[in-house]
Amino acid sequence: MNKFELDTPALLIDFDKLENNLATMQKIADANGVKLRPHTKTHKTPYIAHLQRRAGARGITVAKLGEAEVMNAAGLDDILVAFPLQGAAKIERLLCLAERAQMRVSFDSLKVAQDISEAARQRGLKIPFYIEVDTGLHRVGIPPFEATRDFARAMLQLRGIEFFGLMTHAGHAYAAKTLDEIAALGKREGEVMVETAEMLRADGIETREVSVGSTPTARFAAQVKGVTEIRPGTYALYDTNQTHKFACAWDDCAQTVLLTVVAKHSDRLIFDGGSKTLTSDRGPDGAATFGAVVGFPNLEIYALSEEHAHVKSRDAGPLPDIGAKVQVIPNHACAVMNLHNQFVATRGDQVVGAFEIAARGKIR
Amino acid sequence: MNKFELDTPALLIDFDKLENNLATMQKIADANGVKLRPHTKTHKTPYIAHLQRRAGARGITVAKLGEAEVMNAAGLDDILVAFPLQGAAKIERLLCLAERAQMRVSFDSLKVAQDISEAARQRGLKIPFYIEVDTGLHRVGIPPFEATRDFARAMLQLRGIEFFGLMTHAGHAYAAKTLDEIAALGKREGEVMVETAEMLRADGIETREVSVGSTPTARFAAQVKGVTEIRPGTYALYDTNQTHKFACAWDDCAQTVLLTVVAKHSDRLIFDGGSKTLTSDRGPDGAATFGAVVGFPNLEIYALSEEHAHVKSRDAGPLPDIGAKVQVIPNHACAVMNLHNQFVATRGDQVVGAFEIAARGKIR
Repeated sequence: MNKFELDTPALLIDFDKLENNLATMQKIADANGVKLRPHTKTHKTPYIAHLQRRAGARGITVAKLGEAEVMNAAGLDDILVAFPLQGAAKIERLLCLAERAQMRVSFDSLKVAQDISEAARQRGLKIPFYIEVDTGLHRVGIPPFEATRDFARAMLQLRGIEFFGLMTHAGHAYAAKTLDEIAALGKREGEVMVETAEMLRADGIETREVSVGSTPTARFAAQVKGVTEIRPGTYALYDTNQTHKFACAWDDCAQTVLLTVVAKHSDRLIFDGGSKTLTSDRGPDGAATFGAVVGFPNLEIYALSEEHAHVKSRDAGPLPDIGAKVQVIPNHACAVMNLHNQFVATRGDQVVGAFEIAARGKIR
Repeated sequence: MNKFELDTPALLIDFDKLENNLATMQKIADANGVKLRPHTKTHKTPYIAHLQRRAGARGITVAKLGEAEVMNAAGLDDILVAFPLQGAAKIERLLCLAERAQMRVSFDSLKVAQDISEAARQRGLKIPFYIEVDTGLHRVGIPPFEATRDFARAMLQLRGIEFFGLMTHAGHAYAAKTLDEIAALGKREGEVMVETAEMLRADGIETREVSVGSTPTARFAAQVKGVTEIRPGTYALYDTNQTHKFACAWDDCAQTVLLTVVAKHSDRLIFDGGSKTLTSDRGPDGAATFGAVVGFPNLEIYALSEEHAHVKSRDAGPLPDIGAKVQVIPNHACAVMNLHNQFVATRGDQVVGAFEIAARGKIR
């Protein structure tokens, strides 16, 4: 079946591009001698996580326990939950997972670490953990250097958890405007982490992993000697934001949404998908457009209703007719995957499969 | 069970407030002698649609055929699909629905009307339709007055569809800044529609329904003599946007998201729900906050990651502790319902039920 015969809206993933993206990032990891532990919140789909493992990834990262449960149920068995886990219900779920998979967690709070440690100890488990270091995003994480060392010292007293390494997510790189700036941020991210790890080692604290993240900075941080792991996520699919952050070419964007032109007025077109389909995410630069229309560089998606994309032409370029189908590259691939129940796999114009996005909507 | 014992994030709907909201809007409709046909895209939940019918609503509105299929499967049998339906696949689904329910559609394109008419005629069906009139939103719709009359004339030739009335959605009212402005827009919306209907009648075209929409304008448009139907949606749940548009009091907001404080730094708190839970919708005024924290008017959700709310205090007011649970009123109730698979029903602090959001994610 040709993809343009699909009813719309339809979420498409081009598997030729996907596989190329996975192979390219794996080569970057291999060339720098670092492990790749992709963040699977981007695709939320066990099949793609397995593709990443087969391409060479050493484990996966997830954002929520619910995602870990879906991934583990599908056979993934080395899973980092990169989110502060609070409360008895979540700790119980973590320990159930830890009995059947290699679970890893991250901490930036002594209280959270104590609770998990005590529960794990009572079950005869020892949960490996990273300390989450804040290298500039100012979301979660302990400041680097002395603060992280002091935090690590305190954690060594806890018997149900096992210190494993340091991790950070350089999400602040999305505010950068040039490739040079991103390269410098990636390098600095790696250096700060390696220096902090050295400080721990000088204190006698064994620090095996130095793990860094973010799709735009990964290839720069990976080059810093002493970094051992990268955790990019969006590189699997890419999106308009990643092209604006120099992480990929437009042609690497594997995720598109197929839409139909349902109205054509003198000043605007309306496509049949809005914020429920493309997300209202404007992305880090607050872009005034909500996606790129493939083959129509003159078209701008200037507003979204829930079910309508409002589109105008920047110049006298060609306009698709009412009833025509168009492909839109979304601003934020991860957010789009979270809106859809399924995606269609394509190679070129051919439909080659359909997959449930099994970890969609796992908010807990 | 007390709602604060729920694991987080959890989507809550306060049924006392919900029922009060439904009764209040029904009273407005009844007092003005107009029918209420609520837009169920707000809640996407058949049980709530049945509550609306029991409160007095005469039918429902949906945005997509997939929503109509879910609602019909749950026993709703008078359904307006307020979206231009294009293509053979959708027409086939519409006709299947029309064989078992009273389906209504809206048109603003002759081509779409011709296709549906021809398919319906071949099946021996006649589909009642509204003409969608653009009273200022400039999304879909025919301009009012002569343009609508001329369009109606052309439609009378089509044998598989039956002209039923005019409808509009005054979504442009969300740009208004004062209650007076909204009242004036609602009045004007009604007047333009009634004048257009009179123009059709003067032309010999029977025009039974004059249907207007939007939660902020409904109570003003309903007062215009000649309006026969209102189609508000968000009034069932309300949200921060509706409070800013004077459609409700803060205490009417029935939808909240229960979150946990998972990090506490000197300059910020982090809650365990972000754009996947609260939506990245800023709302019509482009508000810089992503929800209102109940009981903490000093707190501002200044940014969202997918899984994190970034929160700061505007002044020296109280701060919840790490591990504490807080309720957040989202900016846009409809978009939030589309993110979650279930919601928990509460009365006061007590959990009284849990419901699947069965029409969530129905993008086609």
